[in-house]
Amino acid sequence: MRHYCGLFGVFGHPESAVLTSLGLYAQQHRGQESAGICTSDGRRIHRFADMGLVNDVFNPDRLRTLPGSAAIGHVRYSTTGSSCATNAQPLLFEFAGGQTCVGHNGTLTNAAELREEFEARGHIFQTSSDTEVIIHLLAAPEHQANPRPLASVLERVEGAFSLVFLFRDRVVAARDPHGFRPLCLGRMPDGAYVVASETCALDIIDAEYVRDVAPGEILTIDAGGLTSEHFGPEGLQRGGACIFEHVYFADPASDIFGDNVHMVRRRLGEALAREAPVDADLVIPIPNCARCAALGYSGASGLPLGRGFTTSHYIGRSFILPDQASRDLAVKMKLNVIKEAVRGKRLIVVEDSVVRGTTTRGKISALRRAGAAEIHLRVASPPLRHPCYYGIDFPDPQKLVARNRSVEEIRDFLGVDSLHYLSVEGMLGCVKHPQTDYCSACFTGDYPTQIQRPVEKLALERNGKR
Amino acid sequence: MRHYCGLFGVFGHPESAVLTSLGLYAQQHRGQESAGICTSDGRRIHRFADMGLVNDVFNPDRLRTLPGSAAIGHVRYSTTGSSCATNAQPLLFEFAGGQTCVGHNGTLTNAAELREEFEARGHIFQTSSDTEVIIHLLAAPEHQANPRPLASVLERVEGAFSLVFLFRDRVVAARDPHGFRPLCLGRMPDGAYVVASETCALDIIDAEYVRDVAPGEILTIDAGGLTSEHFGPEGLQRGGACIFEHVYFADPASDIFGDNVHMVRRRLGEALAREAPVDADLVIPIPNCARCAALGYSGASGLPLGRGFTTSHYIGRSFILPDQASRDLAVKMKLNVIKEAVRGKRLIVVEDSVVRGTTTRGKISALRRAGAAEIHLRVASPPLRHPCYYGIDFPDPQKLVARNRSVEEIRDFLGVDSLHYLSVEGMLGCVKHPQTDYCSACFTGDYPTQIQRPVEKLALERNGKR
Amino acid sequence: MRHYCGLFGVFGHPESAVLTSLGLYAQQHRGQESAGICTSDGRRIHRFADMGLVNDVFNPDRLRTLPGSAAIGHVRYSTTGSSCATNAQPLLFEFAGGQTCVGHNGTLTNAAELREEFEARGHIFQTSSDTEVIIHLLAAPEHQANPRPLASVLERVEGAFSLVFLFRDRVVAARDPHGFRPLCLGRMPDGAYVVASETCALDIIDAEYVRDVAPGEILTIDAGGLTSEHFGPEGLQRGGACIFEHVYFADPASDIFGDNVHMVRRRLGEALAREAPVDADLVIPIPNCARCAALGYSGASGLPLGRGFTTSHYIGRSFILPDQASRDLAVKMKLNVIKEAVRGKRLIVVEDSVVRGTTTRGKISALRRAGAAEIHLRVASPPLRHPCYYGIDFPDPQKLVARNRSVEEIRDFLGVDSLHYLSVEGMLGCVKHPQTDYCSACFTGDYPTQIQRPVEKLALERNGKR
Amino acid sequence: MRHYCGLFGVFGHPESAVLTSLGLYAQQHRGQESAGICTSDGRRIHRFADMGLVNDVFNPDRLRTLPGSAAIGHVRYSTTGSSCATNAQPLLFEFAGGQTCVGHNGTLTNAAELREEFEARGHIFQTSSDTEVIIHLLAAPEHQANPRPLASVLERVEGAFSLVFLFRDRVVAARDPHGFRPLCLGRMPDGAYVVASETCALDIIDAEYVRDVAPGEILTIDAGGLTSEHFGPEGLQRGGACIFEHVYFADPASDIFGDNVHMVRRRLGEALAREAPVDADLVIPIPNCARCAALGYSGASGLPLGRGFTTSHYIGRSFILPDQASRDLAVKMKLNVIKEAVRGKRLIVVEDSVVRGTTTRGKISALRRAGAAEIHLRVASPPLRHPCYYGIDFPDPQKLVARNRSVEEIRDFLGVDSLHYLSVEGMLGCVKHPQTDYCSACFTGDYPTQIQRPVEKLALERNGKR
Repeated sequence: MRHYCGLFGVFGHPESAVLTSLGLYAQQHRGQESAGICTSDGRRIHRFADMGLVNDVFNPDRLRTLPGSAAIGHVRYSTTGSSCATNAQPLLFEFAGGQTCVGHNGTLTNAAELREEFEARGHIFQTSSDTEVIIHLLAAPEHQANPRPLASVLERVEGAFSLVFLFRDRVVAARDPHGFRPLCLGRMPDGAYVVASETCALDIIDAEYVRDVAPGEILTIDAGGLTSEHFGPEGLQRGGACIFEHVYFADPASDIFGDNVHMVRRRLGEALAREAPVDADLVIPIPNCARCAALGYSGASGLPLGRGFTTSHYIGRSFILPDQASRDLAVKMKLNVIKEAVRGKRLIVVEDSVVRGTTTRGKISALRRAGAAEIHLRVASPPLRHPCYYGIDFPDPQKLVARNRSVEEIRDFLGVDSLHYLSVEGMLGCVKHPQTDYCSACFTGDYPTQIQRPVEKLALERNGKR
Repeated sequence: MRHYCGLFGVFGHPESAVLTSLGLYAQQHRGQESAGICTSDGRRIHRFADMGLVNDVFNPDRLRTLPGSAAIGHVRYSTTGSSCATNAQPLLFEFAGGQTCVGHNGTLTNAAELREEFEARGHIFQTSSDTEVIIHLLAAPEHQANPRPLASVLERVEGAFSLVFLFRDRVVAARDPHGFRPLCLGRMPDGAYVVASETCALDIIDAEYVRDVAPGEILTIDAGGLTSEHFGPEGLQRGGACIFEHVYFADPASDIFGDNVHMVRRRLGEALAREAPVDADLVIPIPNCARCAALGYSGASGLPLGRGFTTSHYIGRSFILPDQASRDLAVKMKLNVIKEAVRGKRLIVVEDSVVRGTTTRGKISALRRAGAAEIHLRVASPPLRHPCYYGIDFPDPQKLVARNRSVEEIRDFLGVDSLHYLSVEGMLGCVKHPQTDYCSACFTGDYPTQIQRPVEKLALERNGKR
Repeated sequence: MRHYCGLFGVFGHPESAVLTSLGLYAQQHRGQESAGICTSDGRRIHRFADMGLVNDVFNPDRLRTLPGSAAIGHVRYSTTGSSCATNAQPLLFEFAGGQTCVGHNGTLTNAAELREEFEARGHIFQTSSDTEVIIHLLAAPEHQANPRPLASVLERVEGAFSLVFLFRDRVVAARDPHGFRPLCLGRMPDGAYVVASETCALDIIDAEYVRDVAPGEILTIDAGGLTSEHFGPEGLQRGGACIFEHVYFADPASDIFGDNVHMVRRRLGEALAREAPVDADLVIPIPNCARCAALGYSGASGLPLGRGFTTSHYIGRSFILPDQASRDLAVKMKLNVIKEAVRGKRLIVVEDSVVRGTTTRGKISALRRAGAAEIHLRVASPPLRHPCYYGIDFPDPQKLVARNRSVEEIRDFLGVDSLHYLSVEGMLGCVKHPQTDYCSACFTGDYPTQIQRPVEKLALERNGKR
Repeated sequence: MRHYCGLFGVFGHPESAVLTSLGLYAQQHRGQESAGICTSDGRRIHRFADMGLVNDVFNPDRLRTLPGSAAIGHVRYSTTGSSCATNAQPLLFEFAGGQTCVGHNGTLTNAAELREEFEARGHIFQTSSDTEVIIHLLAAPEHQANPRPLASVLERVEGAFSLVFLFRDRVVAARDPHGFRPLCLGRMPDGAYVVASETCALDIIDAEYVRDVAPGEILTIDAGGLTSEHFGPEGLQRGGACIFEHVYFADPASDIFGDNVHMVRRRLGEALAREAPVDADLVIPIPNCARCAALGYSGASGLPLGRGFTTSHYIGRSFILPDQASRDLAVKMKLNVIKEAVRGKRLIVVEDSVVRGTTTRGKISALRRAGAAEIHLRVASPPLRHPCYYGIDFPDPQKLVARNRSVEEIRDFLGVDSLHYLSVEGMLGCVKHPQTDYCSACFTGDYPTQIQRPVEKLALERNGKR
């Protein structure tokens, strides 16, 4: 599983590119394969985007080539192959309305239909990204003629979309009517407004959290300040706040959907301890993600927390092994068991979630070899069984360990003495809003929107463009 | 003055990318700033293009990423700035009709009007290149519906265009009705057809010259062999074969427009000797271009040929001098006078053409400092006074030394004892076809087509896109 | 403070370079500025070393250029400037005795004197590294004539040195008589011997720990197996096992000097809780190093462990900020306070050690801003007040926060409500051997060897060589 | 055959590094594989050297890192493999006498013996270059104690050596007693002295030629001006000025050994016409080297000069062909026959020299295929049959086409209708000084010095050091 996109935008600050690079850096966990920044100097737009981590793509020399007081930025996980650099966001387009940049977090579920419609009208597409249809809609004379062109465009697209736009004279942020992905508004000490996927991007630049961009809101930041407008249906019965952001994605320091992520994870661990207690010597988190949940489990159970693994400080960079080197080295290279700490111990191992299961199995096996007496696995979320159509790049459902296995079969596959997954109710009891405000479809299969034609990741790369 | 674009295409050869790289390499003199190759493996199209010389952009590893038995390639001089890589050709587009690549040599004189028309329809442009409108035309439903879509498209564009297209299943070559730029057809020993701007690209791969692509011809090469169709007006009174290709551009080993370039240049030198004889000790070419004309001058005049300069073997690469170093070093670095050979001698210096005059002046001054007794400059073409709207990137006309100067004033500016430019009649007497078959507009101001709105090179970069 | 050098060696394994790259990767925490590997194919020696992390310097292509079944490797922190690449280890020399490579962890305290002596004899030095004198000694006819040349050489040098040598036909490991730096012997499942600074390098390649290389031991591994010889004075009264390896340097999963590092750190935390209990709501480690000690403190005190910071996953790579960006961003970028978790709480913050104090002060200040009610700092080692002459690159003593400050003054400087440093006795009570076996000079100023002329790091770079 | 080293030095000019880069650029034909510059700012020495052409290795940013008013530089052909960068000159050493740099053109014929002697004394060598022994000699106490240390050192080495040294406070140039390689002294308009292998390096920086450095002279340039001293035997009966410099190596614009190179080559062509006249239609030089000789042949014979080949402007850069591409493409890629110009013609083809014969054979074959009626090859030097021990890197003698072949057999091998090599007497009659002043050993086998142990190029790389 790869993280999938982080957004940032700022208007009215002389160091807009520097701030954006910091905001992206703080959200690097949301996308590690490409990074891009667009700035506007009021007359024209400057852009740079490339494959790589934020601090590889943007050094001070590069940032100096991006002048202007308005900027948007994007980090993303991107498909492999030659298409990468072309698809790196923010995308920049030029049409009759001038230059426009867009960065997108989420997935449009009707992008293929819209693209076919435009191709039939003779339009040429530059990327294989679903995001591009938004610009084709915007460039279309019928929307340009609309007094609220962006609202009329966003009412045509379906699915999950948190968006930041950069025009010559303004930054615009928008969130789909279900609010699948987070997006928040902050304010710099000097008054400049910023938007970001997560509040951790506000903290790094000392911006104060103002509020979330609301589902179905278009928020325009320009020289005149803030303007808000609404689009989409009124009174939706269901929200779509992604529960998986709390379980795994978001940074523990961030507040999203009205909750602090660390505190939610602690509560997930506490709920897990209540649902599935077991007598043991030590509670050990699988690094690094499950540390919050393990704290919660330890606190609620009264069992001492321990440390079973050292983590490499360099895991951001993959070590490419020669073919002849055995494959399971890859797991070893990311963590090393502290044998002395686990030998002869009865362990409760806490995981946030289990996707394919292979990595978890490797870690369990390493603990066994180091002499653990018993291993009880506790997972702070329910079994993952369904695809996400809203922007999280899970593997093919057939590869999910829980897809066609009972919990007992999974226990057997992972090689643990006991296994418990947190219940859906347990999970949704740890967050603030009513259950209907969240999308838990990857666990339950209950999707908040109709999915007419399931989106395949590469559906838009029909003939292998570029 | 920079050279402006070379084309190559091949269909039906397993090493299509390698052949294309060689064909481009042989035509490197036609464009040194970017190089690109697209191949089709029958199902999808692969592309790589970048700034740089052919052998920098394409190494064996890179070529291996371009599979397939059909390919087109392009070398070009490109505008500076961030737009470079985006504009590198061949361009690749995807639209309802599938993937299409195009490489273009020439300039479309109604590109700006066509682009405005499409932008008003909501189309989004990817490049600032005039070439892109061809694809927007091709993607337009009205042309897709036409039984001869490409012919109907090419009848909408005006100006100079030798074109190579790559589709999934075919290579197409086309030449504008005036035939401004060269384009020829060749055949490999194994029967595969190739097209190229110049025959020197056929020689390097042992292809046999078959014939020129005719003005107003669309030549399709596919699994069924060759198909030819005609477009444009019948019975044009004027041709537009660029005489400057013979004077300066093309490789001496190439045959273009029915003549061998070296032999034309020799004849230009002979004509020059007849028009402007002078008593002297040595005939010296300005390296390297004028060597053919100097041979002709020496032969016709009976005066011995000499060598006045050594040329660096490394002139393809610019030596970037620190700011503090004096500017005229740049001239010195490219050639060094053989003082011993010119000291006390009366020299006839032969040049092919004079553009700004500054480089020639530097060379003349170097010969003076080395002790030349007399210097008689003979230029194997008429004074250059007018812009080219058909694909040659002359500098701003105001910078042409002959723009606002009489020949006597130019003589004075260059610091020579006598100066003669070959007459227009003398020049056109050295080629095979009637005068009306050639475009000599840069010398005469007489343009073969109507130019309604003179094309500025960057006219399409309105708001500084990308 | 920078980490200072990790060693690895293997003899008799067909994938010696791959194993070495893995062994270095596992020890990356011991040196992040350069990495190098030398291999012997039995006839000649191959070398590659460069600035950068292990997986930047060594990719599979590079490893394939290093054939042979014997190898040594080295990671190091290295001085800045142009000298870097030259000084990257292992160093390779050729002299009458053939080719020899050496990797060194530690510092030779009489290197400057020895170098002067050799220069007076006409020797030419290649590097500014203290290590090079070892090879000049070895090449000297008087030592070559000695029946035990390496032992006679090592008796001439003083200070701290764990060494690995690669000769054409053998790998040799040696450790100074005081045993300042760790060095251990392991065995691969197939019988090949390996040596490494830390046992975590054995774990990654599934090698079994055999024993430590003893202080004053020269261990030769060749086709005949293991040979051990002793050098230096018999019956030293004092050992020099570096206690700072346990406090901060070594990987928690490693066993060094007979103790597991994680367990020692846990005990340091327990001792700290006993020495300086305080009532509070949460125990929070300063990431990442202090996590073991915090576990110990929490366990011994019964106070719950919490998490106060998120850590970036990308801290291995420095983000270079433009000049105009404020300096304290650097601290923020490495960690982000989880505000929700600390607001209104009385915190016990556990640190492993405090060097300059600036980073700690920044973290404390961040906790204050996030609303911590009380902050009690507990440091799991005594105040650092003295330079290390044995291989740890502390800053200039004047920059140590504890150099000229009382604990109360430090408390004030750091801005905490209470502060306690673990006592020397408390610290040395957590390890296995008697106090006299350890060097705690950085805390106590009591050096195990005589230091006649304090070694300055760049003392050997007299005239700015290279 | 590869060219072998060019030198440059300047003292007392604020832009010493820039001047040196230009002086090296003008001498790029003497060595294309590495380039290096050392400068002294009066206190310390700065160095940069790397593989590549001068303008790749030295850009303005790089040159700014080389401050100081004294500099030396070096271009060289260097052996392949990992040893390259280490052996790139100028070499920089540090010993008791301080920092010293040296650049060398030539070969020391007793380097191996001297190296063995030093290794026996315990010295460690850094490079596999013969040049390094000069520094070991200089560092040796016996020479340091000598009142004329450099003279006493240079009297110990044998063979060919033009040398430039850079010390902290001076530049020193020296030439071996036979004067095998050229070395000249020039003066800048502002009075600063420069030294260079060839006068073409003086021309590019507007320096005036003063005189050659004499055989057996050590010329010191420092703040006090010029000082000259003599070393080596008095009254040598034989000189060793390399005739091959005139035939092939040096730039036509240079004056070396008292003659202008272009004029010597013209005279070689004239002598060839006198020795071997033949009736024909055209005289054609093999590009680019033989152009001067062809001019001479044409002038003396009265036969018209023609042009048979176009040369690529990019031959400085090798085009790396994929394995599958046929090998003889390499020849084709460097030159293209102008078919129209040679078809049906009787040609006299002029070459400067023939080494392996394979390239010439390829060119002859291309002319045949283009339809030449007759081909008469005239070589402006005698058959090459013997190795050079003085600095020219000919291939293994067994690979010389003339080694074991009669002229008739060579004619047959090359596929020409007639063949004539210029006689030794004819060749030596074209230069100024008596025959005994020149070394023609590669043609005659008569070596000016005793060669006790023929030097193999890699003799010093015994065990494959580095």
